[in-house]
Amino acid sequence: MQMVSKINGERLYTRIMELGEIGKNTYNGVHRLALSNEDKQAQILVTRWMEEAGMTVSHDHFGNLIGRKEGKSPHLPVVMIGSHIDSVRNGGRFDGVIGVLAGIEIVQALSDARVEHHHPIEVVAFCEEEGSRFNDGLFGSRGMVGKLTREDFNKVDENSLTRFEALKTFGFGINPDKFKESVRTSEEIKLYLEMHIEQGPYLDTTNQSVGIVRGIAGPAWYTIKLQGTAGHAGTVPMNLRHDPLAGAAEVIGEIEKLCKAEVEQQTVGTVGILQVFPGSSNVIPSEVEFSLDLRDLNLSRRNKVFNEIEEKLNQVCKERGLSYNIESNMQVDPVECSNEVVDVLCEVSQSMGINAPLMVSGAGHDAMLLAEITEIGMVFVRCTDGISHNPKEWAEMDDIVNGTRILYETVLTFI
Amino acid sequence: MQMVSKINGERLYTRIMELGEIGKNTYNGVHRLALSNEDKQAQILVTRWMEEAGMTVSHDHFGNLIGRKEGKSPHLPVVMIGSHIDSVRNGGRFDGVIGVLAGIEIVQALSDARVEHHHPIEVVAFCEEEGSRFNDGLFGSRGMVGKLTREDFNKVDENSLTRFEALKTFGFGINPDKFKESVRTSEEIKLYLEMHIEQGPYLDTTNQSVGIVRGIAGPAWYTIKLQGTAGHAGTVPMNLRHDPLAGAAEVIGEIEKLCKAEVEQQTVGTVGILQVFPGSSNVIPSEVEFSLDLRDLNLSRRNKVFNEIEEKLNQVCKERGLSYNIESNMQVDPVECSNEVVDVLCEVSQSMGINAPLMVSGAGHDAMLLAEITEIGMVFVRCTDGISHNPKEWAEMDDIVNGTRILYETVLTFI
Repeated sequence: MQMVSKINGERLYTRIMELGEIGKNTYNGVHRLALSNEDKQAQILVTRWMEEAGMTVSHDHFGNLIGRKEGKSPHLPVVMIGSHIDSVRNGGRFDGVIGVLAGIEIVQALSDARVEHHHPIEVVAFCEEEGSRFNDGLFGSRGMVGKLTREDFNKVDENSLTRFEALKTFGFGINPDKFKESVRTSEEIKLYLEMHIEQGPYLDTTNQSVGIVRGIAGPAWYTIKLQGTAGHAGTVPMNLRHDPLAGAAEVIGEIEKLCKAEVEQQTVGTVGILQVFPGSSNVIPSEVEFSLDLRDLNLSRRNKVFNEIEEKLNQVCKERGLSYNIESNMQVDPVECSNEVVDVLCEVSQSMGINAPLMVSGAGHDAMLLAEITEIGMVFVRCTDGISHNPKEWAEMDDIVNGTRILYETVLTFI
Repeated sequence: MQMVSKINGERLYTRIMELGEIGKNTYNGVHRLALSNEDKQAQILVTRWMEEAGMTVSHDHFGNLIGRKEGKSPHLPVVMIGSHIDSVRNGGRFDGVIGVLAGIEIVQALSDARVEHHHPIEVVAFCEEEGSRFNDGLFGSRGMVGKLTREDFNKVDENSLTRFEALKTFGFGINPDKFKESVRTSEEIKLYLEMHIEQGPYLDTTNQSVGIVRGIAGPAWYTIKLQGTAGHAGTVPMNLRHDPLAGAAEVIGEIEKLCKAEVEQQTVGTVGILQVFPGSSNVIPSEVEFSLDLRDLNLSRRNKVFNEIEEKLNQVCKERGLSYNIESNMQVDPVECSNEVVDVLCEVSQSMGINAPLMVSGAGHDAMLLAEITEIGMVFVRCTDGISHNPKEWAEMDDIVNGTRILYETVLTFI
């Protein structure tokens, strides 16, 4: 294992800034939707950097941009490094981008150092991770692992253009009619690595540069409705009320308490929408509806917390003379990162003197899909105040370089 | 004191039903807005009943319908019984009506029994108590006590007709130009009595027929805003959140607890509106705004509870890293009923074997305004499930008769 990488932080950071100029808007944010003109410009630039790093560049039929550096044994499975370069509307310049450009920098460093390796290496910029154009994200990675059907190409953008049409006219030899040819199998990929900004405040708050992801939490989305009895705010004594908002407040308090009681930073519960009916200041509400977003790396713990929430809901409704209804809107299973990869990432960072805590990713990433066919590993890079999807999104060069160096040494272990 | 009144329950209840036919809508509700054709029809009918009871009928220039039965000493101040016969949109047949028709029934009973009395008696149907046409209620009673200016006549209905115009064309000799002539003074009125359905569930829940009102709670309306930090529902650990909805939930729980801790049925606090921003299921809210309606018969207790709520708000915001803002939108002082009148009402009901609990009115009534110039007393009549302002509004004949008999004996004491 070579411990002194040739990672060129200046080059990497300059490229991040250069890519951030494409789609830059008046808010100093980045607006680079998948398969747009800005995306095309960005892909042309990234293609050039990939080629400079010694890779052969192509697109698959899902619109994924793939740079490949062959190893000594072209038939061995690929060590893949990826992320995305599309942005949300009015987003930042780091989300996704640092993962793709770190991959290129790693290959560049390998080429510069003339490191010999057996496995081929691929750097992938996945198509429409954000879902900001066709409202259907993680498209390229879903395609690569075989989860898309022809129907998924019928999604339309705000101008009613289908994704099929957008892919067909994007160039680079992309032909969505042949999408099935671009599905990869588990035999083809040895490992998938992704570096991403944390998109949360943990590293920044605890003053740590990078983190190693243990797994990606699975979200479960619910809609909870409480029904009570409307009444005059002046004439119904407190002890005769069946106020669903007072009940909801009790449940929301319990959601927070239950999540906090679980292992730190692993169980999160959020109420982001709450509506009160009829919604008049002098009328005791008759109905309250709120959303619950519950995430955990551990599915059984997530289910346990949900059951405890429902128990509380049931108890609150009994005590208050309310009724309730829970609708389950979505349940995504959590994904564990490969123990072997996590161990290597930890060893590497320790040997580099970087204290990289084990973390859970609360947001979804392309890695989540790749986990369906291969081992995955992820590195998180501190971002200022945890802000992302925002022109204010920011990450420092030193942190990006730390993550890239850890990834470089890890790649060396597996190629 | 005569203990056997001549109150004719059948006649009274039949009249309530007959009046309920005027403005009856397809939902079996009553839709009788102030100064409408239906109101005019109703006033003609009520005028006839007043005259049958031996009263001279006139309108003042606020549109108040006034029946007067002279006593032996015409220059003595009036014993007034009143309420209103306008309804909310799609309301019920008892709200207001029972108070006016009980007044007529009392005068009828006095006339039938040829009771001699010194003080004149007036029965008043106040103009637009509900505020459902010109969005500005308690109009007639505010006028009578001298709280209106010419500007108040400029309010318009949904057809942009001013109240001034509506009064001017309503007939009955009403001339809004002369409204100042219709203001009454404290010297002119000895006492004001009003019977009303409770509009709350207390009497029905505790299985009591009627209640005696100790006072009318004053409402205070606030808008409370909590500001925190938006964040990704998956990536911000529970202990790093500044979630204003979790904070609001804690405060709402405390509002309920603080109100419940005060004397039963006297302090009520209601959150009827709550809005969450940005309002997305996977985003920790950045801001929550909610209404607070706080009522109490005792102003210093209301202020004390409000201060305790603000203390809690302050503490919650400090603990959670939130900021808050309170806007005070309205503060109405509570009104105490006359101790003397309350005592008589209690004695009378006891002597009749009716257990009438002392209560607080959480809703406003014309009596609240009359209190500015005279002593007031109110009797509440049980209404089914506490429902009012609704076609389902209901009160039983026996309860209305109980209230009317108590009022009759009380009137006898004072005339």
